Parts: sequence; structure tokens; C-alpha cells
Amino acid sequence: MEKLFVIKIGGNIIDDEIKLSSFLQLFAGIEGKKILVHGGGKLATKLAKQLGVEQQMIDGRRITDAETLKIVTMVYAGSINKNIVAKLQSHQCNAIGLSGADGNVIKAHKRIHPTIDYGFVGDVDAVNATLLKSLLEQNITVVLAPITVDTHGQLLNTNADTIAQETAKALSSLYDVELIYSFEKAGVLLDVHDEASVIATINPSAYKTLKDEKKIFEGMIPKLDNAFAALQSGVTKVIIGKAEELDQLISGNSGTSIIQ
Amino acid sequence: MEKLFVIKIGGNIIDDEIKLSSFLQLFAGIEGKKILVHGGGKLATKLAKQLGVEQQMIDGRRITDAETLKIVTMVYAGSINKNIVAKLQSHQCNAIGLSGADGNVIKAHKRIHPTIDYGFVGDVDAVNATLLKSLLEQNITVVLAPITVDTHGQLLNTNADTIAQETAKALSSLYDVELIYSFEKAGVLLDVHDEASVIATINPSAYKTLKDEKKIFEGMIPKLDNAFAALQSGVTKVIIGKAEELDQLISGNSGTSIIQ
Repeated sequence: MEKLFVIKIGGNIIDDEIKLSSFLQLFAGIEGKKILVHGGGKLATKLAKQLGVEQQMIDGRRITDAETLKIVTMVYAGSINKNIVAKLQSHQCNAIGLSGADGNVIKAHKRIHPTIDYGFVGDVDAVNATLLKSLLEQNITVVLAPITVDTHGQLLNTNADTIAQETAKALSSLYDVELIYSFEKAGVLLDVHDEASVIATINPSAYKTLKDEKKIFEGMIPKLDNAFAALQSGVTKVIIGKAEELDQLISGNSGTSIIQ
Repeated sequence: MEKLFVIKIGGNIIDDEIKLSSFLQLFAGIEGKKILVHGGGKLATKLAKQLGVEQQMIDGRRITDAETLKIVTMVYAGSINKNIVAKLQSHQCNAIGLSGADGNVIKAHKRIHPTIDYGFVGDVDAVNATLLKSLLEQNITVVLAPITVDTHGQLLNTNADTIAQETAKALSSLYDVELIYSFEKAGVLLDVHDEASVIATINPSAYKTLKDEKKIFEGMIPKLDNAFAALQSGVTKVIIGKAEELDQLISGNSGTSIIQ
């Protein structure tokens, strides 16, 4: 099967124009088929503040009321998505930016939670692999914004890590998929304050030991759980590492590889 | 050749949630292939005001400085475009929303003017008919936002009427294209204050007479000039009329038909 990279770029890189620019140049240089999934960054929070729309966060998740949904739709699907697409075009990487509503590419449902009302937050149900394949086969790079849609046409704010994972899984029967989570850290660290303490490879038994010994930074656990779930669903390889070292992540010379 | 409708929806309808909603329901009901081009509306002006970004208009055209470009990108390609797409999905019309940067679907250059600096305003150079055709052939309805891109990846604010016209022209060798400008008026009026004074049909000689006798509302002249230019480039028919009567515009029972 042909190789496909599904690459998630995190919020902290998006907020940094220089880092984002150099990341996009590396991304554009990747040969072959690729999909970019971007997060939100602080621009939405900044805009909400300017507009006097109060933001409520619970466990690091944004509570998305109607006004906040308008803001994240503008910022994620408008500003960030189109600026990334335009930059990729300038690097001769023909990109197309989509929200989940476009071509129903990522369908979701409004999150139901026993105690917390997250508002217009979506949990992913299905990824339209047919549409993605048809674009990839035209050598078009897809750039996905973290906005999805439910069956009633309601837009929903959705976690970008989850979108990346679900997209990778949905395409794993059509391509040899490598899923890369690129962010500001060098990988999964043994010591969160030491960038040199990157764990090169984690398999399920090593993961269990690291968790039992509480050697893994808590914020990393959902990412790793997602990574193992992706591998079990047919994704070939998951890599976590620094956005500025994207080419070395791909060549296996940097970051953490999650393997089965 | 198969029929294709290229339909422009104007700003005043976009600002009116109820009118927009009923328009989109009619639009979704059109059988066969269709493209929707939307304008901007007042939301960008409102957001600019809230953010304290001063707006300068010259001859009804927005001067687009860097801050204004950020706003129109968010509003046109984010808010308006994604809300239209989501609404169409709810009507079982599978739509995909694109800016001109997406798949390089509408390439433009920054407007050069001897005396006025319009800022980041684009004049259209080329429409990517291949990409549009590939989406249409998958029974996907394309929704175009009035944002384009130049060859250096610079986003540009672009007139939606022009995008509609250039899109219709570019596809006229592949489809039997009808171009519809739908807005708040019933068509081209003999008396701008009388909605019943719609001129049913205008051909080039009638147009010349109407202009010579100054019987045509000045604001309509660029639209009509564009319409005749589109017909000369292979578009089959141009119709101007009321958004809420879209089905009757298509059946020929409402609005003004521009013919050669």
C-alpha cells in the first residue's frame, strides 16, 4: 500500500508565526500523500476576550456556547485553516482546507456527559474516507480544521488530536498510514523538564511499566492511549515529537515511536 | 452537455437569517449540479467595529488592509461559508466550502490601480475547472467564499459577483451553464422603487436602448456588463432576480433573463 502521513500540528506552534512557517515548509517538502490536522491555539481565546465573550474551561476543555462556537468557527475554519492553506500553496504544495462539515468529511455528535454540559462540542462518529481518497489521488493535500458537523447540520468544536486519530484509522485500510503528533516538545519525555530525556520507542508493555512507575507526564497519557488505539485499528506507526524536526520525525531520527 | 447552475447569493440575504435559510432550502432542492458563490454581508463590518478596526470604503469597495483581511478571511471563509455548508448538509445537499486558496481553485493578483490603493483586494486570473469538475462529478455542491489567493500564497479579498462570473465562464466548455445572480430585488427594474417593473428579458440591443434612455439603475450596470461578458464567453443564460424566488428564477417565471 502507498504511504500516507496524517500529521497533527499543535496549538503552541500555530500561535508562533515563525515556528509555524518553518513547520509548513518542512511539511510541504514531504513527498507523497499527506493530511494536516491543525488545532486551535490561543487566537480564539484572544478574539473572545476582545469581543467580551467569556470563556469557560473545564479540565483543559473549552466549554463551547453559541457565541464561542461562532468564534472558533471563524478562527479555526477561517483564519488558521486558510492561512495554512495559502502558505502551503506558496510552497507549491497544493492544499485544500476543510472543516468536518465540508463534504461531510468528519461527522460527529454533540457530546453527552452525565455532569458537564460542554456545549457545542463534538465527538467523532465517522470520517469520509472516500472523499479524502479522491482528493489525495489528485495529489491534493488536505488540511483539516477541528470543526465537525452533526446529522442536523450543527457545527461542533472538536478535539484535533481525535480528528487526526480517527482520520488515520479511517484511511488505514486504503494506505500505509503513519500518524504524527507534532508539537513543541521533543517527544514523550521521562523527565518533563529535560528535553533530552526522550523515550525513543514505546510498546504496550513498556507503556504499562512507565505508567505503573508514574514516569509519564499525565498530559501525555490521553495521547498515548489514542496512539495505541490507532495502532490497533490498523495504523502502521505513531510518532510523537517536535514540529520543527518534522523531517527527522519521519526519518525516525527524532521523537518517540509508538509501536505494537 | 449536462446543466450546471452557478448561483451568486448577495450580502443582504446573508445578513437575514430567515431569508438565507429559506434560500438555502430552495437551493438544496435544485436537482443536478450546482455551485453557490456567496458575498460578504455586514458581519465583517460589524466585527471590524467591535474590534476597533476602522473600515474605509471607496466607491462601495472595501479597502482591505492587513487587519481587515484577517477579519474578512474569518467571516467569509470561516463563519459564513461553514454555516452555509452546514445548513446545506442538513438539507441532504452534500456541500463543500472553498476559498480560492483551497486547491488553488481561484487564483488572483493584487489589484493595481493608478490612484487608489485597495490593499489586499484580488482580481481573478484563473479558475481551476478541473478540481471543480472532479467535485461536481462526485455530486458535491461547491460553495465558494469571496477570498482568493495569489501565486505567492497571499490571500485576497475578492468581489463575489466576479467570482461567480469567472467560475461560470471557466466551466462553460464542460457544462451547459446558467449563471444566476440572486439578491433582494425582483430583477432588473425599470423603476427602482417598483418591484413590479421587472424587465423580463434583456438582449444587447434592448440593453443599449435602456442605457441610452438612462432607464437602468446605475448600480445594475456592472452586473449587466458582467452578464453579457459571461454570455460571450460561452455561458448559456444569465438570470438576475429575487433569492426567495430561486425556483421560479430557474423555471423562467421570475426575474430578468439576459440573453444574446
